Amino acid sequence: MASSSVASQSRAAGPNEFASDALGVEMARIGRAARAAAAELATASTAIKNAALGAAATALRADRAAILAANARDMAAAQGLTAAQTDRLRLDDGRVEAMARGIDDIVKLDDPVGRTLATMERPNGLRIQRVTTPLGVVGIIYESRPNVTADAGALCLKAGNAVILRGGSESFHSSGAIVASLRRGLATAGLPQEAIQLVPTRQREAVGHLLAMTEFVDVIVPRGGKSLIERVQRESRIPVLAHLEGNCHTYVDGAADLAMARRIVVNAKMRRTGICGATETLLVDRRCTATHLPALIDDLARAGCEIRGDAATQALDKRVKPASDADWATEYLDAIIAVRVVDGVDAAIEHIRRWGSNHTEAIVTEDAAAAERFLNRLDSAIVMHNASTQFADGGEFGMGAEIGIATGKLHARGPVGAAELTSFKYVVRGAGQVRS
Amino acid sequence: MASSSVASQSRAAGPNEFASDALGVEMARIGRAARAAAAELATASTAIKNAALGAAATALRADRAAILAANARDMAAAQGLTAAQTDRLRLDDGRVEAMARGIDDIVKLDDPVGRTLATMERPNGLRIQRVTTPLGVVGIIYESRPNVTADAGALCLKAGNAVILRGGSESFHSSGAIVASLRRGLATAGLPQEAIQLVPTRQREAVGHLLAMTEFVDVIVPRGGKSLIERVQRESRIPVLAHLEGNCHTYVDGAADLAMARRIVVNAKMRRTGICGATETLLVDRRCTATHLPALIDDLARAGCEIRGDAATQALDKRVKPASDADWATEYLDAIIAVRVVDGVDAAIEHIRRWGSNHTEAIVTEDAAAAERFLNRLDSAIVMHNASTQFADGGEFGMGAEIGIATGKLHARGPVGAAELTSFKYVVRGAGQVRS
Repeated sequence: MASSSVASQSRAAGPNEFASDALGVEMARIGRAARAAAAELATASTAIKNAALGAAATALRADRAAILAANARDMAAAQGLTAAQTDRLRLDDGRVEAMARGIDDIVKLDDPVGRTLATMERPNGLRIQRVTTPLGVVGIIYESRPNVTADAGALCLKAGNAVILRGGSESFHSSGAIVASLRRGLATAGLPQEAIQLVPTRQREAVGHLLAMTEFVDVIVPRGGKSLIERVQRESRIPVLAHLEGNCHTYVDGAADLAMARRIVVNAKMRRTGICGATETLLVDRRCTATHLPALIDDLARAGCEIRGDAATQALDKRVKPASDADWATEYLDAIIAVRVVDGVDAAIEHIRRWGSNHTEAIVTEDAAAAERFLNRLDSAIVMHNASTQFADGGEFGMGAEIGIATGKLHARGPVGAAELTSFKYVVRGAGQVRS
Repeated sequence: MASSSVASQSRAAGPNEFASDALGVEMARIGRAARAAAAELATASTAIKNAALGAAATALRADRAAILAANARDMAAAQGLTAAQTDRLRLDDGRVEAMARGIDDIVKLDDPVGRTLATMERPNGLRIQRVTTPLGVVGIIYESRPNVTADAGALCLKAGNAVILRGGSESFHSSGAIVASLRRGLATAGLPQEAIQLVPTRQREAVGHLLAMTEFVDVIVPRGGKSLIERVQRESRIPVLAHLEGNCHTYVDGAADLAMARRIVVNAKMRRTGICGATETLLVDRRCTATHLPALIDDLARAGCEIRGDAATQALDKRVKPASDADWATEYLDAIIAVRVVDGVDAAIEHIRRWGSNHTEAIVTEDAAAAERFLNRLDSAIVMHNASTQFADGGEFGMGAEIGIATGKLHARGPVGAAELTSFKYVVRGAGQVRS
């Protein structure tokens, strides 16, 4: 069933390779279909959207064999991937079940559409309400992580948006099979299948078309590495909700409780090294170089972390390799940490302003004034006091599933979940008022 | 005093014409200075920001003669402007006072920065707050309307942003004089003058530099005609908060009260024809062609409005000229209206979806179901029932001064005031929590 759905989308969409002209025509067809589907989804009831999501989760479970077969084709063809990339590409029974369960969780979220954010009663009797609406058509461009296909498709559906998905080319067949299941869910609930579409080719030029379809696509969400996001930001003529890298910092202040600092630092770096909220640079107040830093280095080294430090850090422990400026700028996403000794909270702030990516930064201190200074003066999407940067996550924030962590200043910052995939409009009700 | 301030900015900024290399260097200098000023403004107290605004209003009043002299230079040099453009360029005593009073009003607004939008207490004891922050550095590109210089500069300051202003070339000296007064206000309150800067040349290439300074500018706000906005959206590598045209519609339903419809239509079109909330197309339900449309046409014609109608409208009144598809797409900003007879609310919705610009649309009807259908199914920034589209205005919404009406889906829609010129961050307070 799933593979026949894949085939039917594939037939409707043409072959996997398009001549240059045909590709533009095909992308425009997809865009137009998405726009039409979005108009239907915008007024779909919560019950119908949830029915579609529930049916999609059921379809994912029922189609597990077909999805794993498609994934096996992708795995067999994959070349030149790192171990981490291969791991992200691979699906198994547990991961398919996790995708389905993720959709079950999205069903439970409140409907983010149709909420009244504000009501203004005007002296002239006009009643003005700000009411949430879907964004419309969302284009999501991501790397070869099949699970993102299910998460992003379901979140967009919950928020009443049509979505055009463009996954990494290594995950082409896996994503196609997953999208087929999601579309079966839409059809079961009587919603248009064009509400979830996958770009039907691995050709890179398709991304260029997607980024130029201003009449059909309302927002582009790139999710992936720095080069992908930079390309999208450079080329897109459509507004971009960017998820830039997470070069996150933990600053251990001179007034930090040592036991707490040790617990937080090793967790912030090593709990999972591949997530964007993992700490990449540890800054330590010069006042506690002797008292705190040796234990922090030892904890990290014992946990299997490579340590690259400035001169002051190298002097403390032979396991510390030299750090260069490149290290301050790097999001390792690996068991490596950069360590630098700084002169107090202001120097920590200065370092983070210069080298950070405005994602997540934490201070560990018992000094309330230092903490407030750090929280106030840094303008990252997330700033923390006495907590692990690994909490930078929509689920941990109580927001449910997320597409990622936005680091721009417009629209959404921090975890981007269903509520962040909405816009709003003003609804004005009068009784014949005219303006004087 | 004002002219010496102008001169001092002019000296600091170099001459009015830059060689190509020098222009890039100068724009980068301005950007870097704005970024540094923004860091100071972000933590400035409400009292200090208001003191700067108050001093700026005082300086505008004190500098009136210098501002009018600068405006006289601009008026003398202006060529090829329409009457409406010339009117917008001209300043007089009353208009300078109106700018100062506009700033007085901005002083009275609540500070939009530092507001807690949401608080989440997590089961693990983390306390997560979403707190408003300034956007950072805002670049505003506008036409030759000197008053926008004061409005935009003051609104950005209230929201804790540094601003780089690029006004139309015909208003170059007027804007320079106004900025000099605003900067004197900043200096009086001890804030960095670089928080408000004017691009110190009329060269068009300066805009290209501004749109590429991703490291210094957080958001670009274009305000003006369609071609300006389209250029900015096409070229900008910085996120754009766009104010597109207002091709607004009023739909008179078959169940409309005739007296109310007459009052609303003539107000929506003719109260002020040059504002973006003015109705440009009147749609009339075929059911009331005979009962309502003749009076509506007569009211508009008597008010001095040119009427361009479809065949059904032309058949009713000899004063109606023929309309073509181009009329459905046109924002006249003038005493001209396009009129079309449609088959009920769904046909009105279809027309607006096809030809509208997602700004403001109104339905006049006593039929509650038709009204709700119109309000729900149209996705313009502002939708109205039984009210004049001329209410599409931040002041009328109770939001205070505005930079304009945003028609995009991201960040802000509808009136953009001080609150819309902010972003937010998450502040997380813990007691040593680590993620399991």
